[in-house]
Amino acid sequence: MGKKIKVFAPATVANVACGYDVLGFAIDSPGDEVVVELKDEPGVEIVAITGDGGKLPTDTTSNTAGVAMQQLIKKTDYEGGAKVWLHKKMPLGSGLGSSAASSAAGAFAMNQLLDKPFTSAELVPFAMEGERLACGAAHADNVAPALMGGFVLIRSYAPLDIVPIDTPESLYCTVIHPQIEVATKDARQILKKDIPLTDAVTQWGNVAGLIAGLYRKDYGLISRSLQDVVIEPVRSLLIPSFGEIKAASLKAGALGCGISGSGPSIFSLCQHQEVALEIAHIQAKIFADMGVTSETYTSAINQNGPIVMK
Amino acid sequence: MGKKIKVFAPATVANVACGYDVLGFAIDSPGDEVVVELKDEPGVEIVAITGDGGKLPTDTTSNTAGVAMQQLIKKTDYEGGAKVWLHKKMPLGSGLGSSAASSAAGAFAMNQLLDKPFTSAELVPFAMEGERLACGAAHADNVAPALMGGFVLIRSYAPLDIVPIDTPESLYCTVIHPQIEVATKDARQILKKDIPLTDAVTQWGNVAGLIAGLYRKDYGLISRSLQDVVIEPVRSLLIPSFGEIKAASLKAGALGCGISGSGPSIFSLCQHQEVALEIAHIQAKIFADMGVTSETYTSAINQNGPIVMK
Repeated sequence: MGKKIKVFAPATVANVACGYDVLGFAIDSPGDEVVVELKDEPGVEIVAITGDGGKLPTDTTSNTAGVAMQQLIKKTDYEGGAKVWLHKKMPLGSGLGSSAASSAAGAFAMNQLLDKPFTSAELVPFAMEGERLACGAAHADNVAPALMGGFVLIRSYAPLDIVPIDTPESLYCTVIHPQIEVATKDARQILKKDIPLTDAVTQWGNVAGLIAGLYRKDYGLISRSLQDVVIEPVRSLLIPSFGEIKAASLKAGALGCGISGSGPSIFSLCQHQEVALEIAHIQAKIFADMGVTSETYTSAINQNGPIVMK
Repeated sequence: MGKKIKVFAPATVANVACGYDVLGFAIDSPGDEVVVELKDEPGVEIVAITGDGGKLPTDTTSNTAGVAMQQLIKKTDYEGGAKVWLHKKMPLGSGLGSSAASSAAGAFAMNQLLDKPFTSAELVPFAMEGERLACGAAHADNVAPALMGGFVLIRSYAPLDIVPIDTPESLYCTVIHPQIEVATKDARQILKKDIPLTDAVTQWGNVAGLIAGLYRKDYGLISRSLQDVVIEPVRSLLIPSFGEIKAASLKAGALGCGISGSGPSIFSLCQHQEVALEIAHIQAKIFADMGVTSETYTSAINQNGPIVMK
């Protein structure tokens, strides 16, 4: 038997209302687990996938974790290969960075097994290749926080410029995943190619305010900044009762509430854990009342990124 | 004789490359001076204006400082009036917040004389009314830093939400004002009403990066973030040799270089005073070589806003 490791990588909330394509953060739960074992023969072999309902490909070149690991191996002088067991512990196509969590877990596990030739930030491009496969574009707003933890800003894609953002301690997130399907590609296509300059100004005032609020630990400023006048008005049409959920969550004390990634999951940020739990309850009831099954997750902001599991 | 005070208010750089309409900072020099004296009779009387080449109106309702002072008085129970002497010590229509400096100086002086009923941030709306007169719109990205000092974010205009941003100590600014005319109204009209979403994303990545860079005191990040893909490509057409000036300044070590406000002044941010001085020299030579007279100003970021002069 070769050297073996089990890794957990967290789910992530991308976009964060005003930070479309540039901002994301990691949450403690849910997340994916991978087991990776080194083998002498070259190549990455996906041995088994659980928790995906049979939807994910085990062919390495079509699997996000496999692609991320192969990209990493290419940049080292390691001549062997790896076997992978992938345990999906979160819903697919939920807007919670499911493919990113697998990519991050794979890249992180491989890096650990090869005695850490790369930093967390250096793993991002490998995991982005997995994202390219899943979304048709190499986005980093899920993989970067999945690998680095906390809030992460992708200032630029060309060249890639990743900035970890300080996160105040008492910030909690509730995520609700209603059992409806929204494909990332559709969610992108619904967006307009041009936006009014006045809306863009509003948005960059808010994203600047959010970053300042996080550094100043100013929850009021964070709350006022968590607004999206560009993407949410369009994408929320794909999520039944989004407006009702959002209004009820803000009324119950959420700092802000928006679409997680391209949806259909909805995130809420709160200053207190009790508020986050209460909001999960309120949101689940609204979906239940309209006959939609949902899963809720409440956790602190994940500050670690992937971890090795015992 | 009534109670009398002399006040200096600083020039300001609005927009700051990636922060169109939401960001500005104050510089130590140049700036405007006002002398304000209380009088028993109601009304604000502009006694004299110097340094304006006879261009500014002394009619109170048409003068930015006068308007700001009247707006302030309206919100108090003060029943008297004030006499004003305005000394313009900076070029008009330069993109350095000339009208804002006068508005800020007037509002600040009046507030001092009435024993400070308002905080600096509370003075902003009064000074904005002066800006409405000067620009046709009540912008705050010059008056807010003129009143508060440092970098200031205008997160939102409705409601007005002003956020002071921490400024690293060793940040210097060079401003060059070429003797060419660009009216703010023209500079606004040249802009497109819609912009590509991809450009907006680039811009809000940069403004988020700039705010993070200021808080992290990360000069490399500040430098990488000082880019404007939306406004500068259009407005720079109004400033001859802008591209040459910018390229030479970056080559000489500027962190970034862009249009100050709506121009024609150009600002450069630098990490060292010697670099800022060297850049002023290089820029002035480029304009001189093309037969354009210019004034240069090099200073630290102003951290105080207006001050009472002895």
